[in-house]
Amino acid sequence: MSKSILVTGGARSGKSAFAEGLVEAMGPQAVYVATAEAQDAEMAARIEAHRARRGDGWTTREAPLDLVGALDATDGAPRLVDCLTLWLSNLIFAERDWEVEGRALVEAVPRQSAPVVFVTNEVGSGIVPENALARAYRDAAGQLNQMIAAAVDDVYLTVSGIPVRVKPNDNAI
Amino acid sequence: MSKSILVTGGARSGKSAFAEGLVEAMGPQAVYVATAEAQDAEMAARIEAHRARRGDGWTTREAPLDLVGALDATDGAPRLVDCLTLWLSNLIFAERDWEVEGRALVEAVPRQSAPVVFVTNEVGSGIVPENALARAYRDAAGQLNQMIAAAVDDVYLTVSGIPVRVKPNDNAI
Amino acid sequence: MSKSILVTGGARSGKSAFAEGLVEAMGPQAVYVATAEAQDAEMAARIEAHRARRGDGWTTREAPLDLVGALDATDGAPRLVDCLTLWLSNLIFAERDWEVEGRALVEAVPRQSAPVVFVTNEVGSGIVPENALARAYRDAAGQLNQMIAAAVDDVYLTVSGIPVRVKPNDNAI
Repeated sequence: MSKSILVTGGARSGKSAFAEGLVEAMGPQAVYVATAEAQDAEMAARIEAHRARRGDGWTTREAPLDLVGALDATDGAPRLVDCLTLWLSNLIFAERDWEVEGRALVEAVPRQSAPVVFVTNEVGSGIVPENALARAYRDAAGQLNQMIAAAVDDVYLTVSGIPVRVKPNDNAI
Repeated sequence: MSKSILVTGGARSGKSAFAEGLVEAMGPQAVYVATAEAQDAEMAARIEAHRARRGDGWTTREAPLDLVGALDATDGAPRLVDCLTLWLSNLIFAERDWEVEGRALVEAVPRQSAPVVFVTNEVGSGIVPENALARAYRDAAGQLNQMIAAAVDDVYLTVSGIPVRVKPNDNAI
Repeated sequence: MSKSILVTGGARSGKSAFAEGLVEAMGPQAVYVATAEAQDAEMAARIEAHRARRGDGWTTREAPLDLVGALDATDGAPRLVDCLTLWLSNLIFAERDWEVEGRALVEAVPRQSAPVVFVTNEVGSGIVPENALARAYRDAAGQLNQMIAAAVDDVYLTVSGIPVRVKPNDNAI
């Protein structure tokens, strides 16, 4: 089983930059597995900023829905999956069963022959949303994060750009 | 003084499951002190899912408001209080003075003759709510969490299902 | 270079009280650099509560916009800057370029001849705000927090009133 890592944190907490550094340290070539689709100008600008930050040596594979297929299809280069919460949004919007897809992703982790670093978002530490759909989404995101965190080797939480390892950690019970 | 623990974390971060495991490790019998009242279908479904997850050996005591009374009334079995933020909501909705009730709870902790594990929620790490009531609620929740955290022996923060001990911790000042 | 510290955390997580303690331990006199302006009753009440908690030995300097000037102007006493997210709001409201001002603050840190403790807020761990301005603000806050966290010596995250050091930390990579 190749190394698998989850990086979680709030918005603009430095998750992607840290995860990119992890992947770049794993090999000269790397694959950026993008779950984002540029559906509006704000998102297009974000994608372009992320792309500009990554240097040469990166190839991009788009996987808005079929993340497991993208992971299984790539060869020996380490992969950065950015990000799981967007993948979840895409699944919900496409009316897929995210729990089934999430379990398939969990099952795919141990069979990977190359390292993979997943980026996700903390979305559950604000006030309870008034909107039922937003509540359901943050519940699903929390459950998906738990599932993937249990499946990977290491988990990091980024705080103001600083990665803190929470799995394994000396202060876990 | 019996062992007292606070488990905090965002929505669906694995707080309740971790807290249940802590309590189950403390003895063959356990008391689930429920602050929830099933006032709508969404809440009823959550309560039922929690109940189904807990195995035999658990008895339930409802305490939407009189949490101190419920703690003082139970016998030697360890207790799981799930959760403080819902208790706070109930107090505010019932127009009780949550600061008075919170101080009474703090005072009740050291006189407990059986262990107690409190579950609470992180609600203050999102954007400032536009709604004044929501702002007041998240302020109260933060203050209550601080009060209880200061009163108990141990505090854990759950991150994607992984418990991280923050009290005591090696990285505290 | 004098000691520089960043304290971050959610609303009512004990950031300011912890930061005040840090500054008070640094010397008999201290300067409270306030970025807040009392523009409404709620804010005025908060400012007064903070002022009442701080004891003698504190002098206050208001710096809603010119934070760098306030830091450079103070003499040898340790300073508490409370808080960066409010400063960011003030800059945006005044139509200043927060990235330029943020970089100027980063550059000011190493030239300080007296200690400084910055307080900021975690605002990016809730659900994505529907409001575009709120999204832009939380993105800016996250980026500013990263910039300052990289510039200072120590970073603490407060959780239910308990400070957890994240820089330096044993669980960082």
